[in-house]
Amino acid sequence: MGEDYIRDRIEAKYEQMVERRRHFHQYPELSFQEEKTSAAVAFLLREQGLEVRTGVGGHGVIGVLEGGRPGRTVALRSDMDGLPIQDQKNCAYRSQVEGVMHACGHDAHMATLLGAAEILAEMREEIPGRIVFLFQHAEEQVPGGAAPMIEAGALDGVDAVYGAHLWTPLPYGVVGLREGALMAAADSFEIRVTGKGGHGGLPHEATDAVTIASHLVVNLQSIVSRQLDPLESGVISVGHIQGGGAFNVIADRCTLVGTVRTFDADIRKKIQRRIGEVAEATCHMFGAQCDYEYGWGYPTLVNDPTEVRRVAEVARHKLKDVDVREVAPVMAGEDFAYYLQHRPGAFFFVGAGNREKGFVHPHHHPYFDLDERAMKISAELLIQSALAYLTAEKESETISP
Amino acid sequence: MGEDYIRDRIEAKYEQMVERRRHFHQYPELSFQEEKTSAAVAFLLREQGLEVRTGVGGHGVIGVLEGGRPGRTVALRSDMDGLPIQDQKNCAYRSQVEGVMHACGHDAHMATLLGAAEILAEMREEIPGRIVFLFQHAEEQVPGGAAPMIEAGALDGVDAVYGAHLWTPLPYGVVGLREGALMAAADSFEIRVTGKGGHGGLPHEATDAVTIASHLVVNLQSIVSRQLDPLESGVISVGHIQGGGAFNVIADRCTLVGTVRTFDADIRKKIQRRIGEVAEATCHMFGAQCDYEYGWGYPTLVNDPTEVRRVAEVARHKLKDVDVREVAPVMAGEDFAYYLQHRPGAFFFVGAGNREKGFVHPHHHPYFDLDERAMKISAELLIQSALAYLTAEKESETISP
Amino acid sequence: MGEDYIRDRIEAKYEQMVERRRHFHQYPELSFQEEKTSAAVAFLLREQGLEVRTGVGGHGVIGVLEGGRPGRTVALRSDMDGLPIQDQKNCAYRSQVEGVMHACGHDAHMATLLGAAEILAEMREEIPGRIVFLFQHAEEQVPGGAAPMIEAGALDGVDAVYGAHLWTPLPYGVVGLREGALMAAADSFEIRVTGKGGHGGLPHEATDAVTIASHLVVNLQSIVSRQLDPLESGVISVGHIQGGGAFNVIADRCTLVGTVRTFDADIRKKIQRRIGEVAEATCHMFGAQCDYEYGWGYPTLVNDPTEVRRVAEVARHKLKDVDVREVAPVMAGEDFAYYLQHRPGAFFFVGAGNREKGFVHPHHHPYFDLDERAMKISAELLIQSALAYLTAEKESETISP
Amino acid sequence: MGEDYIRDRIEAKYEQMVERRRHFHQYPELSFQEEKTSAAVAFLLREQGLEVRTGVGGHGVIGVLEGGRPGRTVALRSDMDGLPIQDQKNCAYRSQVEGVMHACGHDAHMATLLGAAEILAEMREEIPGRIVFLFQHAEEQVPGGAAPMIEAGALDGVDAVYGAHLWTPLPYGVVGLREGALMAAADSFEIRVTGKGGHGGLPHEATDAVTIASHLVVNLQSIVSRQLDPLESGVISVGHIQGGGAFNVIADRCTLVGTVRTFDADIRKKIQRRIGEVAEATCHMFGAQCDYEYGWGYPTLVNDPTEVRRVAEVARHKLKDVDVREVAPVMAGEDFAYYLQHRPGAFFFVGAGNREKGFVHPHHHPYFDLDERAMKISAELLIQSALAYLTAEKESETISP
Repeated sequence: MGEDYIRDRIEAKYEQMVERRRHFHQYPELSFQEEKTSAAVAFLLREQGLEVRTGVGGHGVIGVLEGGRPGRTVALRSDMDGLPIQDQKNCAYRSQVEGVMHACGHDAHMATLLGAAEILAEMREEIPGRIVFLFQHAEEQVPGGAAPMIEAGALDGVDAVYGAHLWTPLPYGVVGLREGALMAAADSFEIRVTGKGGHGGLPHEATDAVTIASHLVVNLQSIVSRQLDPLESGVISVGHIQGGGAFNVIADRCTLVGTVRTFDADIRKKIQRRIGEVAEATCHMFGAQCDYEYGWGYPTLVNDPTEVRRVAEVARHKLKDVDVREVAPVMAGEDFAYYLQHRPGAFFFVGAGNREKGFVHPHHHPYFDLDERAMKISAELLIQSALAYLTAEKESETISP
Repeated sequence: MGEDYIRDRIEAKYEQMVERRRHFHQYPELSFQEEKTSAAVAFLLREQGLEVRTGVGGHGVIGVLEGGRPGRTVALRSDMDGLPIQDQKNCAYRSQVEGVMHACGHDAHMATLLGAAEILAEMREEIPGRIVFLFQHAEEQVPGGAAPMIEAGALDGVDAVYGAHLWTPLPYGVVGLREGALMAAADSFEIRVTGKGGHGGLPHEATDAVTIASHLVVNLQSIVSRQLDPLESGVISVGHIQGGGAFNVIADRCTLVGTVRTFDADIRKKIQRRIGEVAEATCHMFGAQCDYEYGWGYPTLVNDPTEVRRVAEVARHKLKDVDVREVAPVMAGEDFAYYLQHRPGAFFFVGAGNREKGFVHPHHHPYFDLDERAMKISAELLIQSALAYLTAEKESETISP
Repeated sequence: MGEDYIRDRIEAKYEQMVERRRHFHQYPELSFQEEKTSAAVAFLLREQGLEVRTGVGGHGVIGVLEGGRPGRTVALRSDMDGLPIQDQKNCAYRSQVEGVMHACGHDAHMATLLGAAEILAEMREEIPGRIVFLFQHAEEQVPGGAAPMIEAGALDGVDAVYGAHLWTPLPYGVVGLREGALMAAADSFEIRVTGKGGHGGLPHEATDAVTIASHLVVNLQSIVSRQLDPLESGVISVGHIQGGGAFNVIADRCTLVGTVRTFDADIRKKIQRRIGEVAEATCHMFGAQCDYEYGWGYPTLVNDPTEVRRVAEVARHKLKDVDVREVAPVMAGEDFAYYLQHRPGAFFFVGAGNREKGFVHPHHHPYFDLDERAMKISAELLIQSALAYLTAEKESETISP
Repeated sequence: MGEDYIRDRIEAKYEQMVERRRHFHQYPELSFQEEKTSAAVAFLLREQGLEVRTGVGGHGVIGVLEGGRPGRTVALRSDMDGLPIQDQKNCAYRSQVEGVMHACGHDAHMATLLGAAEILAEMREEIPGRIVFLFQHAEEQVPGGAAPMIEAGALDGVDAVYGAHLWTPLPYGVVGLREGALMAAADSFEIRVTGKGGHGGLPHEATDAVTIASHLVVNLQSIVSRQLDPLESGVISVGHIQGGGAFNVIADRCTLVGTVRTFDADIRKKIQRRIGEVAEATCHMFGAQCDYEYGWGYPTLVNDPTEVRRVAEVARHKLKDVDVREVAPVMAGEDFAYYLQHRPGAFFFVGAGNREKGFVHPHHHPYFDLDERAMKISAELLIQSALAYLTAEKESETISP
């Protein structure tokens, strides 16, 4: 169970991890449609002698590794779904599925966690406690797979949970950590302004939905600029506006669609409420009708400080040559947040960008690719964090800030 | 050449006028595509022995009736084109052409003017001077048919020009007149705001075209509210706004399309200039690029006061039971305006609405229809006005206001 | 009663009219404080043997001239009050009263009407009917003197009423006339936005009255730009905004004060209502309280078309060398409007500007002065119009447009 | 030099500290006018045998205590000025100076630091190194006293600097600390919009400064809402708006005055630049002239993490019964920031609020008062931190987060 041993085993398995990642990359499946992916994962986990449960809350797969000795239970999680993006890379392992692509790295997450599972399975006898491998479907699409998996018992008996995201904004070699809020609550909203259409030259006989919707977008700015605590973060972006058709006809309808990003639950609720109030008042002011729908996305991902410090310590002292950094919160959402609402744990970034090799594209980009060596760091950090948790004396929130 | 004679002749021809109108109604042709319509018109004019010129500036047709005595020359005009609207009426003579409809009454204008031409042709020997019948193509679509017909010589030798529009907003029996500006200059514009797209949660890295375009729409309001003489009329309507797509992506582009309506040439130019300045400054303020195109439509239709008074006098004293009214200016455009830029003349409305008979729909409506009896009033007023002009002593702008 | 006779008498009296005007000019009195002015007027009217009533509805003075023969009754009106403006002219007859000035010409109106009264008194025996001279107080300040004078019986027995305004925007020699609406309804409003003050760095704990009031001003623009018939006139001007004090304290209050100008009564009511709705909704949107007061000013001055045509005919045929013009409506208010709500009549402008002599300043300007010769034209036109009315056969709305 | 000894000495001196604080409280002096205050401070410092320098960069006073052994030099700072606020408290020690008040606690700061100086002077022989007491004038008013004192050599030879602020938002017994940015850069700005005045009914002849300024306030909102990194803090508050006077005259000028609060230097510069661009573009859009002045206030106060940790450790282990908390950044400015631009150090809050005793009013409030016992905690923490610094082995930035 020495550090060198584990590092050697990962090195030995690296070629296989790359092969598996590239296989997954060629055959991505959309959220909630991960049939073949989850079947392959279940097969490989069973091959290692793990107890495997499939169809957990959808296409979720859970593998349980019983250690040789009694102890606590720690869970490690990978996501499995691809995105509705056309792969535009030009390489041997590009997506074979039209319009679907592993543009976020979930392919590598699976290969990494499968490799970690195999290495840990080899070490089974020495492990005190139990390790649960959560292969989650549908991370990319609200309502996501985490919540139904938890409802289906994924966290039953689990004491702590870790997850990693390979991350191209960070260079290879870096591990990014943050106590507390790491990823935003990412919500959506839609506002439909219904006025009264009319002749372009007779504004007084119409209720001009385009002008009203424009006033509304302008009015929304004051929520962020005037009504949020400047020490807190909140974003309201109207991504899409659409109203009317002909140049000479006043539009009867105009629709706004947008997103809200927050870290604090009260700020989130306040913004949800204020958008409605501003929309209602703006429409009312000009005699239009207002329909407002708010789509609650994943909640803020809040890391447990103790677990973050554990992972940081492991990264600094067990791994070789990794650069451990505190990272700023990220404005994207991640449904790992749900696990952290139920159990202590940590979600962290493993740098996978590489300017020299051209791995420079952001996640969800049609040219997205990553430095596959990051899988080794990720595997090692997941294995060592799990072992550190299981071998630690039962803490009573020890490590002080 | 007595009034009763003319009225009797129109009455006798009324059935034929209705038939022709309904035939045209069933076979409408779009602007600039009036091949069959213009061929039929030319045939019927030739049948009356008129000298006919076809292909004038497009599908324009001109018939010339030489009177038996020397004198001045007066022109009467009808338009010929239909609209890209699906006829939704349920009647025997509804449009047989999918998606095309005579929803503005040009069918009845042709039947009326053909009838008038025939009656005047019968009276030829008694007429001092010459009457020119202008059957114009493409009134509904800028740049229209009037300008190219004028360029092709349609007004050569013409001293004055009259035109009538059957008008359902006025009830049958009413003739609507106005000295000076009667119909608006109806222009179009398009503004393209180009910012920089980005992640919905990272507004500071993007230049949000939707927010900028919304500010722009709001800013445009101040042109009308603060920068126009309140005694003048001007309308700026943004009929269409379109920007972005995904709810969670900040839009890089947003497009506004709209119309401008004015009566005064200076106001028109001022609005055209000010929209550009406001668009430019708004985009500049937020770091976006601005592309602005202004589509000059038909100019304001400005009636000659003397000719309007002549038509009013004819309507009051030569016709029976018509109600002559001064009407307010209309916010729609009409390319008869071009004829009036070159020659004195008058354009007037002949009421064709009838609430009891259900002729209540506005022009350009899929249920549009009209009280066909209005063709009789229109024919009589066109004939009598032409004769009044030709038999008048050469005026030196006599009738004072 | 010949035209030359009247013109000669005016010429003979001109020097006195100038003297009186200059005397009034040196001793102006503010609205509702015209004690000495009205006393002088009453004295001079009595001197001519007129029956004089004083204290009519305030400082109003009425003189009645009974003609030698029976007939109808016509009233002629002058106003009497000065303005709270510091006279900055440098001339012998400048105001001797600190901060008060005849900057609108009411001094000349009085001198003119006194002169006219004297000349008509001389002709008494030949006059069929009765002429009533209304010297009205408080034209410059709402609620004005016209309404209380009418209530006090000023129009009892009166059949028609005329009034003239010397007008520097028109050059000397011009008479400006307009049928229908000539002068605007000029209202005022005040909106008080009450939010919640706070630390400049903590906007979320305050309700920022300055930002809310600014949104409100922007929102008001849409009333004129989108909700008025473009063929009608309406102006909303916020003349004064005031909020907060310290640069680093968020203001709890912000006040807007402004004016509304309209010609149509429905437009006027609509704007009054819409300002309230927009103010209420804007404040509500941001959680502030809204207090809105609307001050109804004088109504639109609407001239009777028949009487305007009578004055126009008189001006063209009885006076020498005057240029009679139709003028555009004027955006200022005038409480002569009240007389015209009760009786047919006409209010008209007599050009009093003179570029060469330096009479170029607008009314209410500290340098305001006028070409005194305009008093002669005004006197002649008032006398001749009154006589034309009294000697006309009783019309049944004859003169057609 | 034991903890108990120091605590006892403070306890013994507490009565005197209270007396001195109340004396200062009764005789406050405004910023840059601290003549008597600084004279008293200098006198008391000299009394202890300190080497005293007066008139440092204004009314600044510096006392130097040479320890008995060689070592490093640490500075402790108090501010001395009052505020232009009318004391509305009803107590024996209320301000005797009309309109001037120690409403921020600088009176207590002086009493505290004078007490600390006397105790340290008693311990002189045991102290390794030198302690510099900075009594700074003009903290309340930009450009403040810190900068000129530094320029005059206040930090010459100084290795580190500490300062405390008694703080009523925190209850008595709490010490508030924060690594990095603790207090905001607090800047001011003024924007003058110059349009063209005019008649309230003739907006097209004017350039309406009130409407333009209102658009500007609305446009400013987008800087914070769209152009700042949502993870950073920035506030733009327009505290004061003033334009026009009469309700019926369009204003030629409107002025906005406000404040900007930031923590990050780049954000600060970006806001300063963007306000100018938005103001310029808004005025340009409507044809007005724009004058923009930005008043750079104190920079962000950025605590040195090592020194904060040193103070935290001292507070936790040397003091008794204090509750050490990490506090959120504060949106107010403080010119202690300048010392920290030149030297490592820490500025911290000592809780002085007490709900039961009624010390609940915020700083700068006319009822402001504080729990004087906080002076004891503050004195102890300043003394112990200074001693901790001087007795520490020379660190090379050791204490990791």
